[in-house]
Amino acid sequence: MKTLTSYLAGRWHAGDRDFQTLVDPSTEETLARASSAGADFAGALAWARSTGGPALAGLTFGQRGEILKAAAKRLREHRDELLALSAANNGATAGDGAFDVDGAGGTLAFYGGLGLSLGDRRHLVDGDGLQLGKSEAFWSRHALVPRPGVALHVNAFNFPAWGFAEKFACAFLAGMPVITKPATATALTAHRMVEILLADGLLPEGALQLVVGSTGDLVDRLGAQDVFAFTGSAATARSLRGRAALIAAAVRVNVEADSLNAAVLGPDAAPGTPLFDLFVRDVAREMTQKAGQKCTAVRRIVVPREHEGALIEALAARLARVVTGNPADPSVTMGPLATAAQLDDALDGIAELLATCDLAAGSGARVDGVGAAAGRGFFVAPTLLRCEAPLELTPVHEREVFGPVATVLASSGTAAEAARLVALGGGTLVTSVYSDDAEWRADFFAGAGCWTGRIYVGSTGAEGFGSGAALPGSLHGGPGRAGGGEELGGLRGLAPYLQRVALQGHRDVVDPLAGA
Amino acid sequence: MKTLTSYLAGRWHAGDRDFQTLVDPSTEETLARASSAGADFAGALAWARSTGGPALAGLTFGQRGEILKAAAKRLREHRDELLALSAANNGATAGDGAFDVDGAGGTLAFYGGLGLSLGDRRHLVDGDGLQLGKSEAFWSRHALVPRPGVALHVNAFNFPAWGFAEKFACAFLAGMPVITKPATATALTAHRMVEILLADGLLPEGALQLVVGSTGDLVDRLGAQDVFAFTGSAATARSLRGRAALIAAAVRVNVEADSLNAAVLGPDAAPGTPLFDLFVRDVAREMTQKAGQKCTAVRRIVVPREHEGALIEALAARLARVVTGNPADPSVTMGPLATAAQLDDALDGIAELLATCDLAAGSGARVDGVGAAAGRGFFVAPTLLRCEAPLELTPVHEREVFGPVATVLASSGTAAEAARLVALGGGTLVTSVYSDDAEWRADFFAGAGCWTGRIYVGSTGAEGFGSGAALPGSLHGGPGRAGGGEELGGLRGLAPYLQRVALQGHRDVVDPLAGA
Repeated sequence: MKTLTSYLAGRWHAGDRDFQTLVDPSTEETLARASSAGADFAGALAWARSTGGPALAGLTFGQRGEILKAAAKRLREHRDELLALSAANNGATAGDGAFDVDGAGGTLAFYGGLGLSLGDRRHLVDGDGLQLGKSEAFWSRHALVPRPGVALHVNAFNFPAWGFAEKFACAFLAGMPVITKPATATALTAHRMVEILLADGLLPEGALQLVVGSTGDLVDRLGAQDVFAFTGSAATARSLRGRAALIAAAVRVNVEADSLNAAVLGPDAAPGTPLFDLFVRDVAREMTQKAGQKCTAVRRIVVPREHEGALIEALAARLARVVTGNPADPSVTMGPLATAAQLDDALDGIAELLATCDLAAGSGARVDGVGAAAGRGFFVAPTLLRCEAPLELTPVHEREVFGPVATVLASSGTAAEAARLVALGGGTLVTSVYSDDAEWRADFFAGAGCWTGRIYVGSTGAEGFGSGAALPGSLHGGPGRAGGGEELGGLRGLAPYLQRVALQGHRDVVDPLAGA
Repeated sequence: MKTLTSYLAGRWHAGDRDFQTLVDPSTEETLARASSAGADFAGALAWARSTGGPALAGLTFGQRGEILKAAAKRLREHRDELLALSAANNGATAGDGAFDVDGAGGTLAFYGGLGLSLGDRRHLVDGDGLQLGKSEAFWSRHALVPRPGVALHVNAFNFPAWGFAEKFACAFLAGMPVITKPATATALTAHRMVEILLADGLLPEGALQLVVGSTGDLVDRLGAQDVFAFTGSAATARSLRGRAALIAAAVRVNVEADSLNAAVLGPDAAPGTPLFDLFVRDVAREMTQKAGQKCTAVRRIVVPREHEGALIEALAARLARVVTGNPADPSVTMGPLATAAQLDDALDGIAELLATCDLAAGSGARVDGVGAAAGRGFFVAPTLLRCEAPLELTPVHEREVFGPVATVLASSGTAAEAARLVALGGGTLVTSVYSDDAEWRADFFAGAGCWTGRIYVGSTGAEGFGSGAALPGSLHGGPGRAGGGEELGGLRGLAPYLQRVALQGHRDVVDPLAGA
């Protein structure tokens, strides 16, 4: 059996005990095993600090950008291989795999381009100068300067490729060496990506290390200049964030957590309008893409009561066309959940929601998959629920089912009530809203904007890629339940890895120091 | 005896037990007592949310700016009264009191002006737009929108006026109601300021509440849209930051903690040069202003070994001219520490430092104050220590003495070694550097910039106010030991109170929503 290794302090380390098994979620066949037991994490941090940090500090933003561009190109060259791993280990369809793998390459390329545009700078100017005294003899400027720390990136199982790349691109461009940890259960794609990127000296030595398996005491060894970025469940985020060592050293922690994202239909987007059809198409895709295993997937569908029946009918028809099964079968359009534990959790979640919701479409149960053996594979039927009293504090605003499941919440149709329903989720990564009514949209934004990190607006003539895609040019993150973090958003994504410094003194001294 | 009351949910609340006594630190006479026992903190939060938040949301930035301007004016009208309270309760000299009280007014006025410049906006555009697709039919913009939360501000004993105002100005301008808590021992000035600002309906109802005494369970009642800002010791910050309720709700926490700020002399600023003289003058002031009770005070003085003797001699001569005593005596130039506990802690700290440092000037002991009864008052003599081996991990980089005490650290004079000594402090609010050598300054900045929130540069021809002044136009905060927070810095100071949102959709829809 293949044993996945970790790359630490310049060599590949194989654990010798406590192995975790990686399986194909469509067949439950074993693919590989992994363990980081016996890894020298103190040594890995020391290597990042002594070798990776200085090597990156020796490069300009432009030089780091060039490397990111080359990294994106190299992933493209290995695209088929990575898609095959994604199909095997994540149960991803070709489309799902491309969403992850091409998203990874696109993000690396985007930050590569950003780096090239910054040229030979070594730190960034932040904002305009300001005269503090009676003349320019007392002047202030701000700069964003590199931090000599290490970025520990802990990623979720659902995006092994993109999750690695979006965090790595920002840290690397900012000049901070990375230790990346994919979720062990689906580590195959990320492991291969890191192998590909580490080959032939593309990256400066020490700039990238990989942990497959437990991170051991790594989190507790972080210090004031380090960054800990985590994507995963809100519950795990909570326990990690409270670690005494992180708090003692005021380590920067950036969290993206699952959230109860909402898609909102405006009253003007009535059945029969193209906008209604767009909403149905988008919501069905956001529910079923990657079998609903996206932190940005739609979990709550807010709809004016008068359109509820038509919406459920249209969505149910679309979901009925989904072919669930082993992506190795070309007729399959939706794969399985990634692990047995995820299947159990999703079924538990559906049961919890059904205490206050009705089943509107789908069975809410495990199903046998097309192209998969009976009783094998972690398949869930696309399922639509309906919540009768969504303004009450029902589990629908708390319990996320990380699968192809969403709940329809009927509302009065006012922008204020729609915003209130969004808010009941306690903070989302993304909220989408479909309306051609500018006043209604503005009212909705005034109420719901503070409860989300991103608003995706569907309107006649718009041509978006859907609310589920976290694009590198737009902020990814959200308040409260969504973790309170910020990633991507162009240069904003570099902020955790840089230190903002105010410079004060004579303008002739301060501006050159700030690089202005 | 005067009993200080809290202002909660629209009325003044007097505690009925568990009183803490406020004293004059020069005479140890009792001035007042305070307790928040029995206060309804849940009611205070509810009032802020139901009354203060909506009232502020009804105002534009410009209207809130006007109110801040008026607030600054009102403080100026009560300046003498506030200075008298500061002298009595903080032991502040006229200059120290003005630093605090005028600093408060200046900060309110600065943010008032900023608000006026924003005019009738209700949220802020963040950065430029970006085309995401093949045309402007898929476009992104970011906005900073108000959050419907409450800001809980816990301030330190040393700046009762400015500490209140700098946090309040940012939250108020951003549109978030404030519950402010001064340190109980020196609450007299802040209590009176809040009384003054609450009079005659200057502020919208619910926009400002005051806790004098314990905050009880307030911290544990905060939620996803709230902000908790704390200024004080690193140890207290640590325990507050780890509170389960804050972590569970991903409450935004902003911390400014005491830090081991450094003043650094460049090798070119040799004895006999005007820059050397400026350094001596500035360091002596930053050591003794407010009896060294500033989170931005100089604690470590980094000097090239060849200038060490001359520097100690010059600083000792300056410190010897300081007249320590009761500020009621017009000859006094430095007051007492604020409380008996602070005196004990400072003396303990000096003893700890003396284990690895020598006494270079001053006694390091409690002294009787001029104009104060023998044996009364919390006076410490200005004290200069000298550390023989500062590159070793001595307490000088860890133990802050919150009084008129600093330690000279001799270095080789290279920019790299000076930066390394700064870094050993684990993160500072401010570092000052005095040099006319542009290359040396740039090297120092490259090494030390990431370890501080602000760099104050002394150079020939510069006309700064000193490194200790946290000005509203420049960032106040620092990494690691300094708490990792960010305050002030113009609009940057509003960030904790606003939510950054990415908007995506057709440009014709997104730009108007973002307010661009």
